Amino acid sequence: MHFISEQRLDDSVLERKFTLGKIPGILWTPASASGGAPVPLILLGHPPLGLHKMYPRLLARARHAAADGFATATIELPGSGDRPRWPAAEQARADLRRAMEAGEPVSDEIIDALILPLVEKAVPEWQAALDDLLKLPEIGGPVGYSGGVISIGVRLARVDPRIVAAGLFAGSFVPRTMYEEARHVTIPLHVLLQWDDEGNDRQAALNLFDAFGSKEKSLHANMGRHTGVPQYAGDSAAQFFTRHLK
Amino acid sequence: MHFISEQRLDDSVLERKFTLGKIPGILWTPASASGGAPVPLILLGHPPLGLHKMYPRLLARARHAAADGFATATIELPGSGDRPRWPAAEQARADLRRAMEAGEPVSDEIIDALILPLVEKAVPEWQAALDDLLKLPEIGGPVGYSGGVISIGVRLARVDPRIVAAGLFAGSFVPRTMYEEARHVTIPLHVLLQWDDEGNDRQAALNLFDAFGSKEKSLHANMGRHTGVPQYAGDSAAQFFTRHLK
Repeated sequence: MHFISEQRLDDSVLERKFTLGKIPGILWTPASASGGAPVPLILLGHPPLGLHKMYPRLLARARHAAADGFATATIELPGSGDRPRWPAAEQARADLRRAMEAGEPVSDEIIDALILPLVEKAVPEWQAALDDLLKLPEIGGPVGYSGGVISIGVRLARVDPRIVAAGLFAGSFVPRTMYEEARHVTIPLHVLLQWDDEGNDRQAALNLFDAFGSKEKSLHANMGRHTGVPQYAGDSAAQFFTRHLK
Repeated sequence: MHFISEQRLDDSVLERKFTLGKIPGILWTPASASGGAPVPLILLGHPPLGLHKMYPRLLARARHAAADGFATATIELPGSGDRPRWPAAEQARADLRRAMEAGEPVSDEIIDALILPLVEKAVPEWQAALDDLLKLPEIGGPVGYSGGVISIGVRLARVDPRIVAAGLFAGSFVPRTMYEEARHVTIPLHVLLQWDDEGNDRQAALNLFDAFGSKEKSLHANMGRHTGVPQYAGDSAAQFFTRHLK
């Protein structure tokens, strides 16, 4: 991990851009963290739209978390932003677009082709980022994962014991095999569901929530479409991380 | 409304027992409320097990609300505690017990017989209590309704414009006609659902949540059985009332 820029925002948050091999990433730490006790870390997931496009929303989440005493970090997803595409993913995206424009249901085959390779590629990258982030003196633990492609969160929660709590957003397509993976997830979960999400099958989201093996899991359903998560729902997710990471 | 006893608890809450005609009730006000500005009111619903049996849980909710600056009040339900039973309700309870002991599904006829007369009798009584409570100088508004038999909450929210927000507990049987009533409820709602509630049909609860006409409604599902609502779920309900009644 190499830091390539450093910027103090409002005297309250330190933003550092980095590269991990060829993967761009961003680390935000509360300004109070440097020199003080190491702080817990939340990995900020995001949809595969590119870090540049997602930056304003990621920064807002990072500021909120910093005010609560958390460091946050994110990396570019494979095939997003300036990272190279691969043909199968481009094909799956084209198939998805075609199905949605035709008003057809999105088949399990399209969902598998779209999501499973993304999970396979992304999860080891997030783990490598975590290896390096946890070596920084200002970052302690424990570690949480928040948002983004829910299947990446499910896989990370299943395979990486360093992640002790996850806030998931039931707002993307879920491959069939993920329900079985979800049974093996046992960490505390806080799951957001937008009841009227245009790109989401509500029943699939409820089934996934039901499948999780976690003893502590909460589903928070709010009205509105995909990007309409109300402010108070974000506050309640923040309280979840404060309960589990402090 | 006649006050029949008055007791200061821990210097922070004033508890006054009252009768409304022949109906017993309890009013809790923050100790700071007497002499100060009038405070908002939350009506505390409860299951039909009698005020005496429910007192410890009601008091805990009242203390929490008082700490947030709210007055709370509750009245005995028709047919509960020392109030007279009526034969049809006794018959419906016996039918319910028989069906549950036999492991049979509880029929719509039993649910209607059990709940609809209770709603018809109870709602005007809560409204009469509200008439008198709002005349007290220490009680201002707005008014919220919280918990208890969900159909009583639905009916109150539909018919009484003084109630501006409701926290409902999806933990009791719902007559078929309530789904239609729910469409006419438009105030902000905070709905708790215990995912593994033994006495509750999860799909029925999700259908009722979907039916509500409110633009702002949140569903909070937590693991556990009927009485296992976690502490943090109670905190989040309290924040809901603070957002809407202050």
